[in-house]
Amino acid sequence: MDSGCSGNAIAAATERIRLIGSHLEEGGVADHPRLETAACAKAMRKVEFETDRLAEFIRGKHREVQEKVYEYFLSRPELQTPVEISMNEHRDLCMRQLLGLVRDAGIRPFRYVLEDPEKYFAILEAVGSVDMSLGIKTGVQFSLWGGSVINLGTKKHRDKYFDGIDSLEYPGCFAMTELHHGSNVQGLQTTATFDLVNDEFVINTPNDGAIKWWIGNAAVHGKFATVFARLLLPTHDIKGHSDMGVHAFIVPIRDMKTHQTLPGVEINDCGHKVGLNGVDNGALRFRSVRISRENLLNRFGDVSREGKYTSPLPTINKRFAATLGELVGGRVGLAYSSVGVLKIAVTIATRYSLLRQQFGPPKQPEVSILDYQSQQHKLMPMLASTYAFHFATVHLVQKYSEMKVSHDDELVGDVHALSAGLKAYVTSYTAKSISICRESCGGHGYAAVNRFGSLRNDHDIFQTFEGDNTVLLQQVAGDLLKQYKEKFQGGTLAVTWSYLKESMNSYLSQPNPVTARWEGEEHLRDPKFQLDAFRYRTSRLLQSVAVRLRKHSQNLGAFGAWNRCLNHLLTLAESHIESVILAKFIEAVQRCPDKNAQAALKVVCDLYALDRIWNDIGTYRNVDYVAPNKAKAIHKLTDYLSFQVRNIAGELVDAFDLPDHVTRAPIAMQSEAYSQYTQYVGF
Amino acid sequence: MDSGCSGNAIAAATERIRLIGSHLEEGGVADHPRLETAACAKAMRKVEFETDRLAEFIRGKHREVQEKVYEYFLSRPELQTPVEISMNEHRDLCMRQLLGLVRDAGIRPFRYVLEDPEKYFAILEAVGSVDMSLGIKTGVQFSLWGGSVINLGTKKHRDKYFDGIDSLEYPGCFAMTELHHGSNVQGLQTTATFDLVNDEFVINTPNDGAIKWWIGNAAVHGKFATVFARLLLPTHDIKGHSDMGVHAFIVPIRDMKTHQTLPGVEINDCGHKVGLNGVDNGALRFRSVRISRENLLNRFGDVSREGKYTSPLPTINKRFAATLGELVGGRVGLAYSSVGVLKIAVTIATRYSLLRQQFGPPKQPEVSILDYQSQQHKLMPMLASTYAFHFATVHLVQKYSEMKVSHDDELVGDVHALSAGLKAYVTSYTAKSISICRESCGGHGYAAVNRFGSLRNDHDIFQTFEGDNTVLLQQVAGDLLKQYKEKFQGGTLAVTWSYLKESMNSYLSQPNPVTARWEGEEHLRDPKFQLDAFRYRTSRLLQSVAVRLRKHSQNLGAFGAWNRCLNHLLTLAESHIESVILAKFIEAVQRCPDKNAQAALKVVCDLYALDRIWNDIGTYRNVDYVAPNKAKAIHKLTDYLSFQVRNIAGELVDAFDLPDHVTRAPIAMQSEAYSQYTQYVGF
Repeated sequence: MDSGCSGNAIAAATERIRLIGSHLEEGGVADHPRLETAACAKAMRKVEFETDRLAEFIRGKHREVQEKVYEYFLSRPELQTPVEISMNEHRDLCMRQLLGLVRDAGIRPFRYVLEDPEKYFAILEAVGSVDMSLGIKTGVQFSLWGGSVINLGTKKHRDKYFDGIDSLEYPGCFAMTELHHGSNVQGLQTTATFDLVNDEFVINTPNDGAIKWWIGNAAVHGKFATVFARLLLPTHDIKGHSDMGVHAFIVPIRDMKTHQTLPGVEINDCGHKVGLNGVDNGALRFRSVRISRENLLNRFGDVSREGKYTSPLPTINKRFAATLGELVGGRVGLAYSSVGVLKIAVTIATRYSLLRQQFGPPKQPEVSILDYQSQQHKLMPMLASTYAFHFATVHLVQKYSEMKVSHDDELVGDVHALSAGLKAYVTSYTAKSISICRESCGGHGYAAVNRFGSLRNDHDIFQTFEGDNTVLLQQVAGDLLKQYKEKFQGGTLAVTWSYLKESMNSYLSQPNPVTARWEGEEHLRDPKFQLDAFRYRTSRLLQSVAVRLRKHSQNLGAFGAWNRCLNHLLTLAESHIESVILAKFIEAVQRCPDKNAQAALKVVCDLYALDRIWNDIGTYRNVDYVAPNKAKAIHKLTDYLSFQVRNIAGELVDAFDLPDHVTRAPIAMQSEAYSQYTQYVGF
Repeated sequence: MDSGCSGNAIAAATERIRLIGSHLEEGGVADHPRLETAACAKAMRKVEFETDRLAEFIRGKHREVQEKVYEYFLSRPELQTPVEISMNEHRDLCMRQLLGLVRDAGIRPFRYVLEDPEKYFAILEAVGSVDMSLGIKTGVQFSLWGGSVINLGTKKHRDKYFDGIDSLEYPGCFAMTELHHGSNVQGLQTTATFDLVNDEFVINTPNDGAIKWWIGNAAVHGKFATVFARLLLPTHDIKGHSDMGVHAFIVPIRDMKTHQTLPGVEINDCGHKVGLNGVDNGALRFRSVRISRENLLNRFGDVSREGKYTSPLPTINKRFAATLGELVGGRVGLAYSSVGVLKIAVTIATRYSLLRQQFGPPKQPEVSILDYQSQQHKLMPMLASTYAFHFATVHLVQKYSEMKVSHDDELVGDVHALSAGLKAYVTSYTAKSISICRESCGGHGYAAVNRFGSLRNDHDIFQTFEGDNTVLLQQVAGDLLKQYKEKFQGGTLAVTWSYLKESMNSYLSQPNPVTARWEGEEHLRDPKFQLDAFRYRTSRLLQSVAVRLRKHSQNLGAFGAWNRCLNHLLTLAESHIESVILAKFIEAVQRCPDKNAQAALKVVCDLYALDRIWNDIGTYRNVDYVAPNKAKAIHKLTDYLSFQVRNIAGELVDAFDLPDHVTRAPIAMQSEAYSQYTQYVGF
């Protein structure tokens, strides 16, 4: 538990630097050494800007309600989650936090789910930064349970349930996932059989694999659950029923007064999770549980008193898509909140890396660890990505809000694909980054109070729930292939990929051998070069995978061909999302009203773009889109831009505008961090 | 907490696959689809081998003592760590586990630290799989505290302390790290001033930054600490003392009878960590604590009654290097144990991926998720790396044991560099892989009982302690540069990098344009091609960084030049370690006595080699070592080998020979995994 041998490394390294200095340098200039970092900081132009101007530009318009959340919890120390807390206490505390928010602070998120999604997501982000469990419990209550009632039900359901959900009198669950089926929702096995005699549905769990699993709010607090089950209608044939596909039903699971589990409902506790232990996930088994016919959430399909099925939509697949399509808000919220988590992690790691000093040139003071190229390499592209994701997810939230008002078909398609892609890409990136932040802060990053452990553990499942990332990326790839096909049939393209239409032909022609060698800084920092490079890659991947799919389908069938090309498809989807993120970042830079802040953002945006290109340089080289000299120039400029961003790193994280009571880690306090840390430990 | 929208993705994907099937396939063969995986499994030759034969080959020779550990803890349910446990209870339990091991099971690791390090590391791995906290607490007591007394002290210390350390009557600490200094051990500020009048050393913490931090065993259990401090000897000049550099001293910190903290010693609790909460880390401040002159661990430097300093070594730097060099065993143990952790994680993820079924071709049963190319891509190169690391770390442990007997200088250098490199490389890889395993197991991977959370949290700090990985890799790079210099001066090369001598010139000549285009499977699977490619990369990186260092030193000085090339140096170090790992894997394949098992290992080894080459294809392309057609062939063969390894994945993890009571995760049980999981939850 002590860095036993670490010093040996550096003793050796120091000795070796000396050896290199004396033997390899034939010029023998070791007698007037200059510290690179100090020398560079002076020699190179540092981008100067006012943090406030940048903060103003990136701050969300619902900052006020977020401040209200922060201040409420700051004023209620008894509602703050301690570093050590048992699962049961944590669940209890999390419920009290939610009740405090709604009933004491008077912040009622439910109305905003429909009326003002931007405000709703701002609240979610803020409560998530108090305790990520609280963020998820809030989401379970209002987006999932509440959202399913509002979006899948009709007026009668809204009239009956809205107030109880809003006030938390009706805590509820969203019971979709089963033990054997997560991603494959169409494979769910729970049944809801219509009983014509009693005008009721009978909910049943036919086997262990169909037990509803991981259901948030179920283990302790829920009174109701929206249960997804196959609707079975009685028929007169030999089978006895007709399977109408997956529908959603409101099922009471606990007595409103006694809170006892209702007859026929069996609830077990899913127990400890890697994180989010403030959320009580349970497993539900139904044994012939009877509910009123009125409890079918009947917006997309209804059953009459006579057992007749009616729907505004013609097929099971379309009804299923419409049902799940209403739940896309969950993904939007996760993508947005994930950026919030990334901001906190990057802020802590950057501030500590500026504070922490270790080693230095002979007989000179030690240098900040952020002065090491390796630390810049770990953290500066991450800081740039955080800015990039910020603008992309703000864009997504805006589009989602527009969609909720206009219901425009094109916008619906766009938001669906964009939310899938950004949710998958951003949450995977954040998950990896939190680990890098921990590691880059060394031993002190391992102290629980410095947050990386809980951030990582709580955030981890963002990659899985609301759609497994690997599955979501396939949806993006599928959409791209559809667009590709339509292009060649002259159809219209959704907004997000209109670049394909505009430039697919030029992207798919042979790379220009002249521009492939251009290596000037001005060219490499030209947004046109950067976007072209991203889009070239996407177009190329798209065209080649379409060809491969066609080829393999002949022998393997559609499923086999898709699987044979799966890694290719996932790369395509990621490449496309990166194109969209870069485009949004470039727009944001152009939009920034303060010239100095704009100059700073431009450096950050260039780092984002060139680091991504460098990370996939093999692909560019393989098709000679980039010649060797250009590849080298990109690499060099990326290092240089990392260094430039390092010089404004403190200001850049300050501009996220996260108060110390949000970041909380003692090693990241804006003043006296070390002494706040020693005080915490008891000195 | 429910995969709300996931189904939408697949509905869309399914729809799209249909679209692709009907529109892109001009041949229209969708009416006789074949499942790729099933078709492949039949069409492609599956490597057949007996698991036991392979297990026999890879099983360590100290399996017996490991079984004894497993069985002891299996027979003592009260000593098993529950999923939820408070920090204080965990610390208490961990001490009881250690006492049980030593006093009840009669396994006394201390003697093996010197006598039989291979056996010692086998015990460490086994106790670590019971609870990683126990593994670390064992290491703190016997390798760090015990090891420092034996290796840095002399006979008088051994006589006085051996039995107490061995029997746990003298629980102790290793107090090196300070709040402000971890990696930079030479920057430690704690002082030990010799008091000539009283024949004592006076230990002092001069400022808050010098508080000993993260000291294992200090918060609760330790009675002694080996304290690293600057030795100050009185002089008659104006300064009043002479700084002799960092030395180690035995300092009693708690009363042997009352366990009260001794006067002048202030101990605070470092509190909760991200993981390893069974280990009680504390922070120590010394206020003029007096210890006998005999408490200086005086193997490499001594102080006489008259205050005269004597040492067998001529300089402070040499003494410092010798002192820390004795502690290299810690790194060997971490590299070895990290592979043990990786085996557990890979076994759980692979078994679950074989069990779990999700989606499938229309109207056919769902397929195992390990049949998806994306899942193979995540897990199969990881499984191959686990085998590769197994052979490399077994080799390291053997070399370390030889070194402890022979003290051969060349072997010492070799073990130092190899332990630094493997510790850094393997622990970083394992840390990333545990996260990938969690994510690849979806929601059920997030259940605490399925282990990924605690494995990741406990293992995380392996990247930092016993030498921060980024610092250790620099040591490796420094060693390589030294070897490079010596080569050009005709000197000898250490064993591990003798390949540089043999082939540096050929590697540094221009790549052969003919072989750069060879793409046949036989060629790509030829160990000579693979090793050449790895070594070419290392040689190239080495030569180019040497040139860059020389160039930059002229303007930036040695420190600045090193920093300017830091990412390059880290890549060089990783590349070298990969070469060593591959070489050891190839040797192991050749050594395997069972022909069928050998054939299986060969597939695994080829996947390891080609996956690594593909991951850095940009470098190979940039210098035209690999032509575009060959790059494509490597990529294709890597996918194919992943599929081949998938077909024997169950057997390969079985051959790790980890009983169910070691893997423990219900989703990875060798029979009835789902029902063991539902039973765990209460059904």
